[in-house]
Amino acid sequence: MTQPDWIAGEWAQGHLRLWQMAADDTVLAQMAPAPGRDAAEALARLLPELAPGVPVLISGAADLPFPAVPCKPPVMARARDGAGGLHLLPGVAQARPADILEGEETRVAGFLALNPRFDGVVCLPGAQSRWVHVSAGEIVSFRSFLTGTLGRLLAAPEALGPALGTGWDEAAFLEAVDQAMGRPAGFAGDLSAILAESRLHDLSPAVALARLWGLLIGMELAAAKPYWLGQSVAILDEGETAARYRAALAAQGVPAVLADGARMALEGLKRARREAKP
Amino acid sequence: MTQPDWIAGEWAQGHLRLWQMAADDTVLAQMAPAPGRDAAEALARLLPELAPGVPVLISGAADLPFPAVPCKPPVMARARDGAGGLHLLPGVAQARPADILEGEETRVAGFLALNPRFDGVVCLPGAQSRWVHVSAGEIVSFRSFLTGTLGRLLAAPEALGPALGTGWDEAAFLEAVDQAMGRPAGFAGDLSAILAESRLHDLSPAVALARLWGLLIGMELAAAKPYWLGQSVAILDEGETAARYRAALAAQGVPAVLADGARMALEGLKRARREAKP
Repeated sequence: MTQPDWIAGEWAQGHLRLWQMAADDTVLAQMAPAPGRDAAEALARLLPELAPGVPVLISGAADLPFPAVPCKPPVMARARDGAGGLHLLPGVAQARPADILEGEETRVAGFLALNPRFDGVVCLPGAQSRWVHVSAGEIVSFRSFLTGTLGRLLAAPEALGPALGTGWDEAAFLEAVDQAMGRPAGFAGDLSAILAESRLHDLSPAVALARLWGLLIGMELAAAKPYWLGQSVAILDEGETAARYRAALAAQGVPAVLADGARMALEGLKRARREAKP
Repeated sequence: MTQPDWIAGEWAQGHLRLWQMAADDTVLAQMAPAPGRDAAEALARLLPELAPGVPVLISGAADLPFPAVPCKPPVMARARDGAGGLHLLPGVAQARPADILEGEETRVAGFLALNPRFDGVVCLPGAQSRWVHVSAGEIVSFRSFLTGTLGRLLAAPEALGPALGTGWDEAAFLEAVDQAMGRPAGFAGDLSAILAESRLHDLSPAVALARLWGLLIGMELAAAKPYWLGQSVAILDEGETAARYRAALAAQGVPAVLADGARMALEGLKRARREAKP
């Protein structure tokens, strides 16, 4: 097997993705180690297996402080002490309202590398979904929402677990988006109603799941309206969540383009590697 | 020790409370067994320890169907097959909006036994908090909110755990109540802001905890406004949560009386035992 020239990596939501890269930035191999809670630990386990002396560039795993908006997505990585050729790309901070990007800035950089004239809003669903206003190649401002974490927590057996299933009902989803956008305060009551309808009226588990996500995304869209209203919107994600955000935005008359989030991360890491080289 | 005449019990939020009762309805002893996930299992473990032949009356543990609103809190318990003298008090159901009381109706009954002329709204905080409209001794309608469950889930390490502490900041709580009542759609974004302020600006863990509960209770008050506006409100609870609801309501100009929730449960069980006897 060809020896890699460098290794690109992204730490996101407890998952480390690694790409072994050739000198011409083609991908030689991809690795997705077991998920964990700590980036440093996952890297310490993996680094000895990677080719010694090969530089490693990772996004989403650096410690504060981060550069503050407005700024271009960072390209200058910091070497981690005592970790050989390991370099960590910093995130981006915002003082007011207080907010942090950790890896998403590199996905935005990758999207801008492929779409250099893009001016608008990038939506990055996740444990915390991020809405990032981009103009003239800079991150101007952004806003995070704990939506993904709420959705995952609410699937617990002591929450909505007993009512939820694996199917999907698009009409129920869009109806709940509307409901939450119009009456966001009803959120906790609408969650209880899912449980009660499931027990009293045999609400289908697919409808219950779609309704939960419609409430979550509808509430987020209501608050993020200053970001998406009248803007070009790009959604960066690699899962089914992107399609849900796109459908919810389309129902508000806002078309959005989709781009693969993991691929954007890799493009952002390649850009940082190119631009940081002397 | 005196042999009990009957045993009163309440199954609530994974906890079984039991009172050994004398014939004159004084309490001989109280037991609070280890928490569990299943009422039937907890009872099966305990029943052999209780005096054989002594009738047991439990609220909050019956299976559907339940009588529907408008109705008085049920007093006719159902005998459980093959479980000796075990009798379960049914809850109360509401078809539209779909909703269920499971044990709270007995607390309401206890409050009405002590306050027979009460006409207004009873608020019962919990894993699901319930707002119950009571008139002429009947439960007219009610609405549940998954507030308590949301608060508990959001304290997880992968959610707001790292930002939260054990103290309390009343001013931060009331400010967050106001914020959520005015802009409830911001909920998921305000949660992310707690995390970010904790990391960027050293937000105090006590302020973070108070803000989380202010957002939760504020969002609930905004949706429950048709229940509490211009009404007599009684809060039945046995924890610090009652004081939070009372302070949030007081900030809206609504005075509320507090009553001990566990004591109201016992009073409700005593009333059911009295009224159901031939």
